[in-house]
Amino acid sequence: MVGRTALPDLAFGAWISRPAHPFPFASARRPGVAPTPTSQETAMNESDSNEIVGPHRYRNAEAMLAHGERVWLRAADSGLLNIQVDHESNDRLIVRDTGHEFTLLCSCSYLGLNHHPKIIEGAVSALRKAGTTGLSIAEVRVRLNLLVELEESLRDLYGAPALPGVSCSVLTAGILPLIASGHIGGGAGGPRVMVFDRFCHFSMAYIKPICGDEALVLNCPHNDLNYLEDICKKYPRVAYVADGAYSMGGRTALEGLIDLQNRYGLFLYFDDSHALSIDGPRGEGYVRSRIEMNPLTMIVGSLAKAFGASGGVAMLGSERDFQFLYRNAGPVTWSQNMDVAAVGACLASAELHRTPELGQLQAKLQRNIDVFDQRFPTRFSGNGLPIRLIDVGDEDLAVRLSEQLYRAGYYCSAVFFPIVARGAAGVRVMLRADLAADRLDHFCDAVESSMASA
Amino acid sequence: MVGRTALPDLAFGAWISRPAHPFPFASARRPGVAPTPTSQETAMNESDSNEIVGPHRYRNAEAMLAHGERVWLRAADSGLLNIQVDHESNDRLIVRDTGHEFTLLCSCSYLGLNHHPKIIEGAVSALRKAGTTGLSIAEVRVRLNLLVELEESLRDLYGAPALPGVSCSVLTAGILPLIASGHIGGGAGGPRVMVFDRFCHFSMAYIKPICGDEALVLNCPHNDLNYLEDICKKYPRVAYVADGAYSMGGRTALEGLIDLQNRYGLFLYFDDSHALSIDGPRGEGYVRSRIEMNPLTMIVGSLAKAFGASGGVAMLGSERDFQFLYRNAGPVTWSQNMDVAAVGACLASAELHRTPELGQLQAKLQRNIDVFDQRFPTRFSGNGLPIRLIDVGDEDLAVRLSEQLYRAGYYCSAVFFPIVARGAAGVRVMLRADLAADRLDHFCDAVESSMASA
Repeated sequence: MVGRTALPDLAFGAWISRPAHPFPFASARRPGVAPTPTSQETAMNESDSNEIVGPHRYRNAEAMLAHGERVWLRAADSGLLNIQVDHESNDRLIVRDTGHEFTLLCSCSYLGLNHHPKIIEGAVSALRKAGTTGLSIAEVRVRLNLLVELEESLRDLYGAPALPGVSCSVLTAGILPLIASGHIGGGAGGPRVMVFDRFCHFSMAYIKPICGDEALVLNCPHNDLNYLEDICKKYPRVAYVADGAYSMGGRTALEGLIDLQNRYGLFLYFDDSHALSIDGPRGEGYVRSRIEMNPLTMIVGSLAKAFGASGGVAMLGSERDFQFLYRNAGPVTWSQNMDVAAVGACLASAELHRTPELGQLQAKLQRNIDVFDQRFPTRFSGNGLPIRLIDVGDEDLAVRLSEQLYRAGYYCSAVFFPIVARGAAGVRVMLRADLAADRLDHFCDAVESSMASA
Repeated sequence: MVGRTALPDLAFGAWISRPAHPFPFASARRPGVAPTPTSQETAMNESDSNEIVGPHRYRNAEAMLAHGERVWLRAADSGLLNIQVDHESNDRLIVRDTGHEFTLLCSCSYLGLNHHPKIIEGAVSALRKAGTTGLSIAEVRVRLNLLVELEESLRDLYGAPALPGVSCSVLTAGILPLIASGHIGGGAGGPRVMVFDRFCHFSMAYIKPICGDEALVLNCPHNDLNYLEDICKKYPRVAYVADGAYSMGGRTALEGLIDLQNRYGLFLYFDDSHALSIDGPRGEGYVRSRIEMNPLTMIVGSLAKAFGASGGVAMLGSERDFQFLYRNAGPVTWSQNMDVAAVGACLASAELHRTPELGQLQAKLQRNIDVFDQRFPTRFSGNGLPIRLIDVGDEDLAVRLSEQLYRAGYYCSAVFFPIVARGAAGVRVMLRADLAADRLDHFCDAVESSMASA
């Protein structure tokens, strides 16, 4: 329970540290809680509170909020929430009322593609060409050729059938329960034991209760291949749910997982949102650029981070899954899919991923990461990911540092318990390819002087 | 279990009939299934299948697919799936390969706003003005003034704090568990018993397992106020989850529900997606145009149906909930929010909702509904909703009719068991304001001649 527990900040965005357990206080339920009543019409017995309170197997909002809200309110008190801006560039956001300008060091647009003229114009031309925002009908019935073009473009880019979705987390919400029930990944062997890496992103952990209605759900210590192998030995069908690149440093244990897949038929589900576009010759991400797809592997990612557009994508391990998920993956089917503007932005970004500009942007990002690492060596130095933590230690000091940096023109977030361990507070920095060299230098200076004076 | 059970078609879109129980085969689990093991590291006992299979309290993919896939494959065999089109108007979609043209009678864009030039241009000008697709940072930290303008515009339009989301179902996924845990709707009284109307949309039923980890989940017979009152008498804190306007006809029992709210403090959660924009002087929907908001009421709706844009909105009962949900409502916070194009489209549509054009479009829709009702009187006639079912009876006949209509230039869907009761198959028609009078007449003729010849 020590180390990164990261509860409340998980709600801040997909780039957050991973919880030791997404709801570490799950055991804080009332003593003597009764077994969950079924959802069927229940015989109306005496009401008592034990009957009303859920089992808190996977989550406990009360316990989470008891800690999370304190953190949020501290951030709000420091003026670091609900900042409303006009956009000039990621380096220049402007608060209208005060005229305060600042550089965003807390954006997942790692390559700066969110303001790339080609992507903006891709959205515009799609809207103009299609003449509609969307057909407002389930895509599995009737869909625009524009969306089909995107499916084909992403299929080509990633070398896998590519299912688009309104967001990465919506894809996860629709797909994971069907992996749990055994309907993805072939075979008629019935449900799969679902093993969630303890650090996997909240968007996957959130779906545990739904998976848990289909199959046994277990938590695995982070990257613990021995633990996972024991589960594979015990159960005939197992799926492992993890991030590809973990945003607080480190990656999934890819080689060992492939080995387990080969030996035990382990299904692998990765959210590689933080590596998409910034890793791989065509921005395939950490996982896809290192493995071949197969029916027991699925990778999802956000198209709204380094990709620079909107929506999400699932790279599928088999052709059959493409139609099957379009028909059956819950929120993927009845949630609206990407609208026309998002499709157009994605098409333009996918095209850009095929040009030398992608490599140039990846290199620019890497240079900025290197510059920062030279000024502020941290435990993350050299890991290739754009997220860094300036260790401060004391949490009040971390908040003061974050405030000072914001006043100096840089938005980056203070992180403290329970985001990180007690006494290990710091300031999180997210680097970008489009962060101007002089801004970065000045930011590093500001960090140094703020730390000296704080 | 007879009547509308609507399993597989629920996955087709949000405009679908309601299930008697979203997973009517939930009891089809293996006999002797063991209680769910916890998700904590479980002592590794002997593995047996009972340990792996989930309790299927709320869902059972295997049982659902056993029925659903049959229906899907029948639709696919009839050439009614994966139709890929270019868009000229909702009345004229074109299959590129064959040149086949048809009119969409299966779209939720009931007012035709999806291709309104002002809404398209709203998206375009927002992209141009903001110069970015989005900031790729959690909106509760930093957000564009453009999004703030939309929040304010929707707040004004609906007379309630309005929380935007990437889709209506994402809002539901984020909010319902916090109603279950008792953190929405005031009071420190702990969890609420969550009562789901049996016909409520799949997007709400999907979240039952998550709610069920926080609180007792019950199913209520459709619009059964007596049943609901009994629950209110038994439990101190209860929430009721329902559609505002049910897409297969009928509405929520609003008056009786308000009465229960007044007498017992019942929390009311409505998804009013199918009535938004088509009902109310400013398109507030069925529920909002008939009630005053209060801290015990929440209404969500899709902005991608009659509203003509993208995303979803939650009309909140209290100011406090706005910030609270922005901070804590899971997918609402870490899923990307609406992108800039969607915000622009929504701003333009909201503006249009303030003009006389809204009333004109509502009236046009109503005229088309009336014309259809005169030609084909059904049990839905006069209910004000744009969805109609042509009763056929035999399901093969219904499929043949749907195929014939598609060949004649009209896409509308055959529905049969388990979407409707056995022997009550038919063809579902969704009317629009922008359906040209001659197209509607011709369509009615086509239905008549097809029925005569089928």
